[in-house]
Order: sequence, then structure tokens, then C-alpha cells
Amino acid sequence: MTHDLSAAREAILLGQHSASDALARCTEAARAAPAETYVRRFAGQPEATATAVDLQHRAGIPLPPLAGLAVSIKDLFDVAGFPTTAGSLVLRDQAPAAADAPVVARLRRAGAALTGHTHMTEFAFSGVGLNPHLGTPPNPATAALDGTPRIPGGSTSGGGVSVASGAAFAALGSDTGGSIRIPAALQGLVGFKNTSRLTPTAGTVPLSPTLDTACAITRSVRDAVLLHEVLADRKVTLRHRPAASLRLAVPSTTLLDGLEPAVAAAFERALATLRQAGARIDDIALDELAELRSMNALGGFPAAEAWAWHRDLLARDEARYDPRVVSRIRRGATISAADHLKLIDARRDWIARVEHRLRPYDALLSPTVPVVAPSIASLATDDAFFAMNALLLRNPSVINFLDGCALSLPCHAAGELPMGLMVWGPALADDTVLDTSLAIERALAGAGAA
Amino acid sequence: MTHDLSAAREAILLGQHSASDALARCTEAARAAPAETYVRRFAGQPEATATAVDLQHRAGIPLPPLAGLAVSIKDLFDVAGFPTTAGSLVLRDQAPAAADAPVVARLRRAGAALTGHTHMTEFAFSGVGLNPHLGTPPNPATAALDGTPRIPGGSTSGGGVSVASGAAFAALGSDTGGSIRIPAALQGLVGFKNTSRLTPTAGTVPLSPTLDTACAITRSVRDAVLLHEVLADRKVTLRHRPAASLRLAVPSTTLLDGLEPAVAAAFERALATLRQAGARIDDIALDELAELRSMNALGGFPAAEAWAWHRDLLARDEARYDPRVVSRIRRGATISAADHLKLIDARRDWIARVEHRLRPYDALLSPTVPVVAPSIASLATDDAFFAMNALLLRNPSVINFLDGCALSLPCHAAGELPMGLMVWGPALADDTVLDTSLAIERALAGAGAA
Repeated sequence: MTHDLSAAREAILLGQHSASDALARCTEAARAAPAETYVRRFAGQPEATATAVDLQHRAGIPLPPLAGLAVSIKDLFDVAGFPTTAGSLVLRDQAPAAADAPVVARLRRAGAALTGHTHMTEFAFSGVGLNPHLGTPPNPATAALDGTPRIPGGSTSGGGVSVASGAAFAALGSDTGGSIRIPAALQGLVGFKNTSRLTPTAGTVPLSPTLDTACAITRSVRDAVLLHEVLADRKVTLRHRPAASLRLAVPSTTLLDGLEPAVAAAFERALATLRQAGARIDDIALDELAELRSMNALGGFPAAEAWAWHRDLLARDEARYDPRVVSRIRRGATISAADHLKLIDARRDWIARVEHRLRPYDALLSPTVPVVAPSIASLATDDAFFAMNALLLRNPSVINFLDGCALSLPCHAAGELPMGLMVWGPALADDTVLDTSLAIERALAGAGAA
Repeated sequence: MTHDLSAAREAILLGQHSASDALARCTEAARAAPAETYVRRFAGQPEATATAVDLQHRAGIPLPPLAGLAVSIKDLFDVAGFPTTAGSLVLRDQAPAAADAPVVARLRRAGAALTGHTHMTEFAFSGVGLNPHLGTPPNPATAALDGTPRIPGGSTSGGGVSVASGAAFAALGSDTGGSIRIPAALQGLVGFKNTSRLTPTAGTVPLSPTLDTACAITRSVRDAVLLHEVLADRKVTLRHRPAASLRLAVPSTTLLDGLEPAVAAAFERALATLRQAGARIDDIALDELAELRSMNALGGFPAAEAWAWHRDLLARDEARYDPRVVSRIRRGATISAADHLKLIDARRDWIARVEHRLRPYDALLSPTVPVVAPSIASLATDDAFFAMNALLLRNPSVINFLDGCALSLPCHAAGELPMGLMVWGPALADDTVLDTSLAIERALAGAGAA
């Protein structure tokens, strides 16, 4: 396990360092991180929080859960006193937010030192992470392995980079079709998308209210548990089941199509390790996944719901949008209410059928994305960009449509480019998915995963 | 309205003073307060919290709801690092609590500067406030009016005194039969006992788990709303109804018996003021109240439940108990399971019948207690003590048995000894009772109540 937030908190409890010491190290790391990590820093505020936590801790007051440690905030969550610009030029002149979004307030209440608003793809569209107006942070996890600037994954691009570069211990982000899990997978981190109803999305710029989830990128599964408890304001029930007691399944339809050889190998290696640890892993078809493409042929919830939110803004200010984002939003203009209502019904029916198939299993396993991070240069054309975007969103977005929960954890070996294993389940299986992920993380670490 | 927590918070927001300035004033007031206010101070901790709040506020971080202001804690709530002794000698050698009680943790999370554990009657028995082992704080509100040392009311005796003396803005306490409302009434303060299920009682020394409620004493109704929101971790919905739109009732059975002339006069004056403001106030019988005495003849829930908790401790250590407390606990020894189960059934039936009668009304009005604070000297004999205790508990305990909610607010005129008006309702009518109390507080203030 990397040096995660839980370890830093433990070190503060043991008197090995203070919250302020830990913050100073994050600030130092932020200096070496890509310039496109933060859109804006909350100058002076994280230092004030770390000092405040140290002061109270020294007086004997219990250390809060997040212990004055650095957490970054995606630029679509309101933070009192700062504008929320959602990675866009269009919202650049927004007034500062009057109040924190509820999840931001929960982070503060839990003692987080909020460092700044992180870069993201414009309005959270695309899982690639490119932002033609505000810049794209290169992937820091791959930078250490080869000289090619590679995509960070998105839309929580800067959030992932803040954690991978050491500038923050965790990143608050959102996930509508993979925006937490894709950067986590491509940067060797953990990303947990909880069942969306468990975390409030008030005080955010929406992409698709039906699918949007407020959640976090962390360095370990135990940190994912901790951050989820804070963001959802609930206690996770962990059973600490050993890998040997797990009953898992790998669905073959769609999710294993066109895997890059390195991803196929890492995924098979992870399955072999888990089987060796005693887990039972079934191969299942899950034919229902083949229906998704036609159900969402018109653009699905994101197109309809983003059009509803953006149409007035687009009418006034289209020139300042990323054209690749506009083309995706405009698909919603042609979706009728009847089409939309039909989709809601079809989804409800599909969820019931899929949940029935998943019932025998503690969790499902899939590659988070079918590729390692491609180079930024390879996505210069629209065709290459949209093809890669579709490929990156394909697997993660299944779980958003299912209204389920999913955690991506690293499954690559040391020296390999980062790859993610996605552990997932239906709505409200969050505690089981987290518990299962803890067991899997342990088993893979024992087998030498990065 | 007195200078309440909301006003102090507002002053911090306006830059008129800091949280540390406000705390210094409370500390100064604590020096002049009765010596029996605090059992133990949380030395250095409130100062650290106020400084931490100021530091973060100056950096532009939103001021938390309780703004680094002083809140005292009744000695039956766990506070990490300190023993919980419940006003007893018996628990004096308890190990320090490993963790905060959930309501204490909520106060901290909301930015309260926790000042110390306050005096209370032993194990929260009695509404009088006398504690023969650890001492009784004289009532600071009456000390200003006459030279007679008078009872503070209990069992949250020191909690009330901490607020009345200016040592704290609010006091966390508990209410099983009036323990928040009696000291509030006798000291000219506001005490709100919420529906008990709305606040957790984990991490406390119980009296009667069926009736116990974690709640607070404050200086104003708006502060009661604020403290309830923090302790219950919920948002109160206020409708801000004017007094003219209120439909209220005064039940005559039991609750108006044997009022001291001053209390009868203050109560009638309050009703007249409210009628003049346009409120409709019906006189109702509420005959069901006459059944309470026989239903609880064996000692009711407190006797049975306290005996269950105390019997082992009593067997080992009875000599260190207050004999007046022991005699009340011992009543539980003779209650059979069948008696207890019959009481549970009878209560359920009684609640249903009473709730039906209350349905037409926004809230009910009663004198909180039928007397002003008697002198400590007048309660020297057991007979006088037990008679006064029964009198003080009589009205407030009706609402605990009802599983309802009730707020006591001052209704005396300047220069009079403090008296309380109790605004009450059935289970989960908390928001209506708070909203109604705001309107009543405003109407009485306009008419010149203290």
C-alpha cells in the first residue's frame, strides 16, 4: 500500500509528524506536479486548517477523520468564496459561491485541508481528460515510466493528478460515466463511485442528474471507505471477508471486447491470483449488456439532461465552448420527451433483469478500461478522440446506467503502465463492494501488484 | 432577546469580535459563576478551538454553525480523554472516555468550544438540583434578585448555571422527566426537549433509556433551533407563522393544579398577551392526564430501567450513593417483567388517545413548573425534598411519557423570579413546537417579558 491518508493520519496520532508537516510535503509535491493540476488554489486556507487541527490535537481534542490532510476539489463543486467554472471558459465570470456544496462542507467538517479546484474536462464531458482551453495535465504515473506525455483520464483529470503527484491525499470528483474510475485506472489510483443516491449533488454543475455521483479518488481502498463515509455521512459496515470466501463473476458481453494485450494479461493475472487465494470466480455472459447500445442510441441521459441545462448558455456563448463538447450536448436537442420517458422505463426494466443475474455474487469483476493511457498526441483528430472516449467510457458507464456502485483499483505490476480492475455491484451494494475490494487489494498486493 | 449564541456568531461574521474574544468573556464569567458550575474543565481545549476557528475564518473558510463559541457538557456525556462521572462519587475512578459521545462529536464538528463537564444531580435523579456529595450551584438568576440561595433546578443544574452565569452560550444536557426544562424555567433560560428518537444517546450514562433525550439549554428559541439542528444532525423546517395564526390549547387536568400565585399570574399574563396578538387559545380538559399517577404508581420506566443499570453497582458501592437517589432506584427492584410489559402497552394506548386530542392544535401551553425556585434551605428534610421534586417533575414528565417534545421559555416580567412557559406537542412535532415558540417568544418580548 502506498502512503495513503489513513497512514498519514496514523502518523499524526503517533506524533511522527503534524498535519502541517504533511501539508508542507503536499505543497512541495504540488510545485513539481503538472501546471494544469489546479485551476485555482484556495490560498492560505489549507495551511489554516492544518494549523487549526494541530492546535486542537495538541490540546487533547480528538483528531478529526481527515486530520487536516490535503484534499483537492474538482472545479464543479461550489467552495464558498471561489467561483465554480467546471473546466470552462463560459463560466469564468461566475460570482464566487456563497456557500460550500454539501459534500464540500462534509469534507471540511471532517477536518480536510481543501487545497484548490482541480482541472477537469469541460463540463465533465469525456473520459479522456483533454481540455483545449485550459490545458491538460499529463499523466504523472506514466511520466515516471516513459517519455511520452499520456492522457490523465477524465473528467476528474486534475483530481487524479493531484493524488498521483502527491499534491493531495484524496480528490473530490464526480462520476457520470466513469469520471472518477477512468483517471484512477490510468494513474494507478483507487476510484470509488458509490450508488449515486448516497451522496448529495447540490451545489455542483450537473452533467446528467440521473447518473451524476459525488465521490473521490484515493490511494487505497481503506481511504476510499473513509472518504465515502465522510461524503455520504454514513458508516460503512465492513465484514472483512477473506478472498477465499468470495463468490465473484466476470461478465463477458461487451466488457472484455478489444482489450489491449497488456490489459488482458493484467486482468487474467489478477483473476489467477484471486482464484489461487481461494475465491470462486464464474464466467457469465450477462447478455443484457448488449442492449445498452441501442437503448442509448440517441445519446441517453447525458445528452438530454445536458441539453436542458446548457441550451440557454449555448445560445448566448457557444463560441467559448469546446466544439467536441458542444457536438455531444447538441445530440440532446433532438430527443423528445417521449423518447426520454421510454428510456426511463427501459432502464428500470433492464436494471431489474440485470440485478437478478447479479444476485448470486458478492461482486463482479471487469477491466475498468480496455486500454492503458494513450499518448496525448495520438488523439489529435476528432475521429481518434471520439473513438478513444467511447472506449474509455464503455465499461465504467455500465454501472452508472445500472444505478450501481463500482471501485477501480490498480492491477498492474511494478514497471507496467497503470491498469485498473473494476469491482462492481448493483444499487446499494456499496458496503459489499468496498469489503470485497479490500480483500482483493490485499490478495493482489501479496502477489506483487504495484 | 439576551445576547445569545446566534448574536455572538453574527458579531464574529461582522468582525466585531473574534471567537477567542467571546471565549475570554465566557471564561471571565465562569470565574464569577458558582464554584459548583463545572465538575471539571477541559483545560486549554476551548481556547484551542476558538483560536482554530478564528484562524480558519480569517483565511476565508466559512464560519461553522457554532463558531468556536462556548458550550458546556453535562457530566453524563462521554468526552474523549475525560472520565464521565454522572455527578456521582461512585464513578469517580472511571477511566477517561476513549471517544466522544455522538452528540458531543456533533457539537465539535459544528465548531463548538467545549468548556467542561457541568455539575448535575447524582445519576440525573431529581429535578431539584441538589447534590449532597459534590455540591449544589445556587441559582444565579435569582441571586441577582434576592439574597436567598435558591435551587438551580435539575438534573442539568450546572448546565443551566453555565448559561445563566455567562460561562457558556449553551449547555448540552439530558431530559428524562424535565432535566433540561426545569433548570431552564427556574433560571430564566430556554430549554428544548426534542422527541427522544431524534438525538442519539450512545456514550451517555442512562437514567431511563425509554425516556432519556439528549438536548440543550440556550438563551433564546433561535439558539434552541440551532442546537437541535446540530445535535439531531437534521434541518428544522420553520414556517415563521405569526402569533395571530396559532391555534393553541391549555389543558387543565393536573397541569394547572396548585400553581404558586406568581406562576398563575405570569401564565395568565402570557395567555392574555398571546390572545391579544390574535392567537386562538382553547381551554381543554385532557382527562387522560389523570391516568398517569396510577399507571406509574410502581415507579414507571425510570425505576425499572435505573434498577437494571444500577443494581450491580449498588450491590458493590451503595454507601457512596446519595440515599435519596438509592431510595428511588430501589423501587425498581420490585417491578416484575409483567408489570413492565403492561406499562409499555398502557403507554402505547395512552399516547394514541392523547395524540388524538392534541390533533386540532399547533401546540399546547402549560406552566413548565408550578413554582418559582424555592430556597435551598427549605428542602432540608426528605419530606420537603421529595414533595418539591414531585412538584417540579409533574408537568415536564408528562411530555416524556407522551414521547413528545416541549420547549420552556421565560414568561416572567423584569424583576420577577424566573418562570417558564412550556410549549409542547406530540412525537415528531418538533419543528412545529419550535416555530410556535419563536412566535410566542416574539409576542412576549413585545409585551415586556424578561
